[in-house]
Amino acid sequence: MSLDAIPVHVVNAGEGGLSGNAPPLLRELLTGVRRLLSDAEPSSIDLTALPLTPADLDWLRDTLGQGEVRVTLDANGESSLDETACPGVWWVTHRNEQGAVVAQFLEVAFVPELVRAQVEDIRIGSAYLESLMSENPSARSTAPYDEEAASCRDL
Amino acid sequence: MSLDAIPVHVVNAGEGGLSGNAPPLLRELLTGVRRLLSDAEPSSIDLTALPLTPADLDWLRDTLGQGEVRVTLDANGESSLDETACPGVWWVTHRNEQGAVVAQFLEVAFVPELVRAQVEDIRIGSAYLESLMSENPSARSTAPYDEEAASCRDL
Repeated sequence: MSLDAIPVHVVNAGEGGLSGNAPPLLRELLTGVRRLLSDAEPSSIDLTALPLTPADLDWLRDTLGQGEVRVTLDANGESSLDETACPGVWWVTHRNEQGAVVAQFLEVAFVPELVRAQVEDIRIGSAYLESLMSENPSARSTAPYDEEAASCRDL
Repeated sequence: MSLDAIPVHVVNAGEGGLSGNAPPLLRELLTGVRRLLSDAEPSSIDLTALPLTPADLDWLRDTLGQGEVRVTLDANGESSLDETACPGVWWVTHRNEQGAVVAQFLEVAFVPELVRAQVEDIRIGSAYLESLMSENPSARSTAPYDEEAASCRDL
């Protein structure tokens, strides 16, 4: 992305740097959460595309709170996908390799899509497991203990 | 759980503390991964229920490697759910409030079930969002900027 492509928002900040643009997002999130419940349809709000001040983002983050689940994803820079205190609403931050925030979203989903293992990657992982087995001849033998206890159980 | 209920395994450890019981688990994981790909059916191996030495567990962890995704879940003690270098295979460790490991699993899944927000919790979160809106009257107003940009977009 060239510097020209980075959107610049002129924001009129009031008291404490708050622009008043953050609270209406709660309504949008509620709409998204209701749609997730009714149609299992995920959605997201691109916070980078909105005229929000740093104080607005802090207010939003504090208001939505911290949930039980925190996800870190390392792929060309670190991303964090943190559940808020509203389950189903995730605060997603993407950073570049230098640690600078390059995008920030509120995702409404059972689980953010990035966290799910992708079929193509699982296929590669399956081939990797086979290569591990060929390096460890004993991996192909039967377990020398209760076979039932060692087998993958359906969840 | 009473102390009597904790399974105790007598393991004959050989070279470097390895019992030889870990490599056959690779075969079980491969079976689980293939079933995930063919039938989308998750499964798991309870490592605590198997006669594995600490060295076996270290060998298994090193062999399976570390993937891109790490999940931390805080609920009555911390759980970690780390993707291995075989996507779809997750190393899951549950700790009690004192930080002691109480259970350890290898889960084969697109995403471990514990990471997904549950419908009942999302309903509670939805009610929480409504309460946040009633505390912030401006949350009910229309966004004072491009409504389209602020709305939840389908993913």
